[in-house]
Amino acid sequence: MKAGIVSVGTELLMGEVLDTNASYLASQLPLLGLDLQSIMVLPDNIESLAEAFGQAWRRFDVVLATGGLGPTQDDLTREATARVLGEEMSVSPELERDLRAMFAAMGREMPLSNIKQATLIPSARSIPNPRGTAPGWWVERDGRIMVAMPGPPAEMQRMWEAEVMPRLRAAVRREAVGVRTLKCLGSEGEVGEKAGPVFAMGNPALGIYAKPDGIHLRLIARAADDAGAAALLAAAESRLRECLGHQVWGTDADTLEGRAGALLAARQLTLATMESCTGGLLSAIITDVPGSSAYFKGGFISYTSEMKVSLGVDARLIASHGVVSAQVAEAMAIAARRRLGADIGLAVTGVAGPDPLEGKPPGLAYIGIAAPDGTRAVEGRYPPRRVDVKRLVVTHALHLLIQTVQAAPGGM
Amino acid sequence: MKAGIVSVGTELLMGEVLDTNASYLASQLPLLGLDLQSIMVLPDNIESLAEAFGQAWRRFDVVLATGGLGPTQDDLTREATARVLGEEMSVSPELERDLRAMFAAMGREMPLSNIKQATLIPSARSIPNPRGTAPGWWVERDGRIMVAMPGPPAEMQRMWEAEVMPRLRAAVRREAVGVRTLKCLGSEGEVGEKAGPVFAMGNPALGIYAKPDGIHLRLIARAADDAGAAALLAAAESRLRECLGHQVWGTDADTLEGRAGALLAARQLTLATMESCTGGLLSAIITDVPGSSAYFKGGFISYTSEMKVSLGVDARLIASHGVVSAQVAEAMAIAARRRLGADIGLAVTGVAGPDPLEGKPPGLAYIGIAAPDGTRAVEGRYPPRRVDVKRLVVTHALHLLIQTVQAAPGGM
Repeated sequence: MKAGIVSVGTELLMGEVLDTNASYLASQLPLLGLDLQSIMVLPDNIESLAEAFGQAWRRFDVVLATGGLGPTQDDLTREATARVLGEEMSVSPELERDLRAMFAAMGREMPLSNIKQATLIPSARSIPNPRGTAPGWWVERDGRIMVAMPGPPAEMQRMWEAEVMPRLRAAVRREAVGVRTLKCLGSEGEVGEKAGPVFAMGNPALGIYAKPDGIHLRLIARAADDAGAAALLAAAESRLRECLGHQVWGTDADTLEGRAGALLAARQLTLATMESCTGGLLSAIITDVPGSSAYFKGGFISYTSEMKVSLGVDARLIASHGVVSAQVAEAMAIAARRRLGADIGLAVTGVAGPDPLEGKPPGLAYIGIAAPDGTRAVEGRYPPRRVDVKRLVVTHALHLLIQTVQAAPGGM
Repeated sequence: MKAGIVSVGTELLMGEVLDTNASYLASQLPLLGLDLQSIMVLPDNIESLAEAFGQAWRRFDVVLATGGLGPTQDDLTREATARVLGEEMSVSPELERDLRAMFAAMGREMPLSNIKQATLIPSARSIPNPRGTAPGWWVERDGRIMVAMPGPPAEMQRMWEAEVMPRLRAAVRREAVGVRTLKCLGSEGEVGEKAGPVFAMGNPALGIYAKPDGIHLRLIARAADDAGAAALLAAAESRLRECLGHQVWGTDADTLEGRAGALLAARQLTLATMESCTGGLLSAIITDVPGSSAYFKGGFISYTSEMKVSLGVDARLIASHGVVSAQVAEAMAIAARRRLGADIGLAVTGVAGPDPLEGKPPGLAYIGIAAPDGTRAVEGRYPPRRVDVKRLVVTHALHLLIQTVQAAPGGM
């Protein structure tokens, strides 16, 4: 079934307020099996709104509108909907009573203009909004559905989750849809090849996406009911895990830093860092995880060779291989581990750019990792934009950390 | 004059990729005096695109499209534009030559499908894209303008700033508009009060915005020509600088870290950091500035008390005041400065959350700064969301750094 989103509000067209509602809803619709055909962002203007709502109503099975439900003259979503359907708005006595009670509870008199928040048209039912004064509208006619929700994201999301999503699921589903994402280390080509047998399954459908934190494999299963969809997902997931083994580092909302932290905590290992080109970003991301102080012992931002040497990197290594080298990355990892008495030392050295360093090009970096069972370094080459290089090196370093901890013997 | 934006790409409707291009362009249009009437987000479907482009072309004076300029069959912005205008696409020999040269420079053969990136229609001129293979289209006919730009934000913004914005300015303007933003330290109320005399000027119009990096004062001047607008801006800016003095830390695209770096470099001062609750984020942001290795000597992420003490913080200070205290922040700043032989030491200690620490609430932090002429610490209290706390503390620390360096005697 086809769906369209209309975001209402002049402020969304001024570039001062970002329309997060549309992207939130866009990410929700695949879970209902709805196929989003367009997003429109429109000003608080009755002609524009009526035309857009009319178009969307004729074209799509489900129309989701956000915004324009406030009490002022500028709030025109109800008026535009009534015009498109050729229906008359009238005040609902129950809604008026609820609204007055809400104002009374806040110890305030209800302003006259708010009465429009208690109106309905014959095809509309009201949707409760515990977080604000504007109830939504659920409009159903001629086999089509239009839903109007308030603009403030907290009110909209609450209404979507508690009211609209369940009603829509009941109204639109002919089948159950289940979604599961596995996140992997490796290149898109390699992961795609290994996932071949699951591609062939067809249901669940498998999508493969290269993302900043690795390769995502998204499974979408369709079945007669939720249990059937869950069983299809479980079978496909276990097959993918067989094919990919330790390359799977997480699922769904997992982050690299969260997953690395969970692995370190589970194995009671501690971590120390030494960073050059990433300038602290690696540690900053590691410590974004609540509770990271349980395993993160600290770090050094050794922006000069002098500081590296003072922390224990052999000056002769720097002299013979250059500061951006696998040898120095390993020595930095060893030094971080030793200085802070950690189980694992993780280090990065590279050329963030824009200028070359020691004749080495921007985007070249080495990541070193020192663990009880050995030390190694990997080389990375990244597109040479300073901010991107830092982020990509950090991602690569977290991949290496996860691999190392996953592969560690149990007693490490 | 009226404008519309069309964002092209099925991925924008899947909730996987956020459409940042539309909001970026929306924020730019007021500077040209253009009135944005709608944003449409559409899938890679020739029928949908042709219909939307046709509607926008009939309704608006200026249509800005992003996305759909790639080499694959899914990239249909050129095709849809040609259909709406009833014009024939043909390969431009110069564009083909440039494209082949670009691939040759990357040491690659040009895939056959890329030839469509060298096409034009009679009403279109090509817009160069130094960051990618897809040139844009500037289409002008019947007094209307349509611009097609590539989807990747870095390519789009470069093309907008260097090519599209200046051409549009020349094409649409009836009056000259000049814009200047001053960025200030302080609270919105205080800055607004001091800026009072400039509010009264009327032209330039003064807007005041509380932003993550401080208070922004945005001046918009209107005049018959550029020289007139520039003169109005210059007069208002110099008046604002009189009113606000050192509270003005930067202008327009300046960032806190860039401004702090420029001040340090100009005064030939070096910097070292020691971070606890920010976990490396302060240093990561300081080193986002190209050339920061000239003044940044390095940093310590002292996530444990043990590490703080090993670096020179007196254990008795921690015992008597707690690790989250003004005294420890000062001691950390002094230790960072001394350990790395820097002119200035900057340190942060605080409770990132979600749990309290030493009975102190999440969101409490102290920032210490040690300079040749003395050491001090400031307290900050921030809304207790871990990721927000880290970012806000860093902003506050950079403010303090700028204040300290600005106020330093010339010979510091």
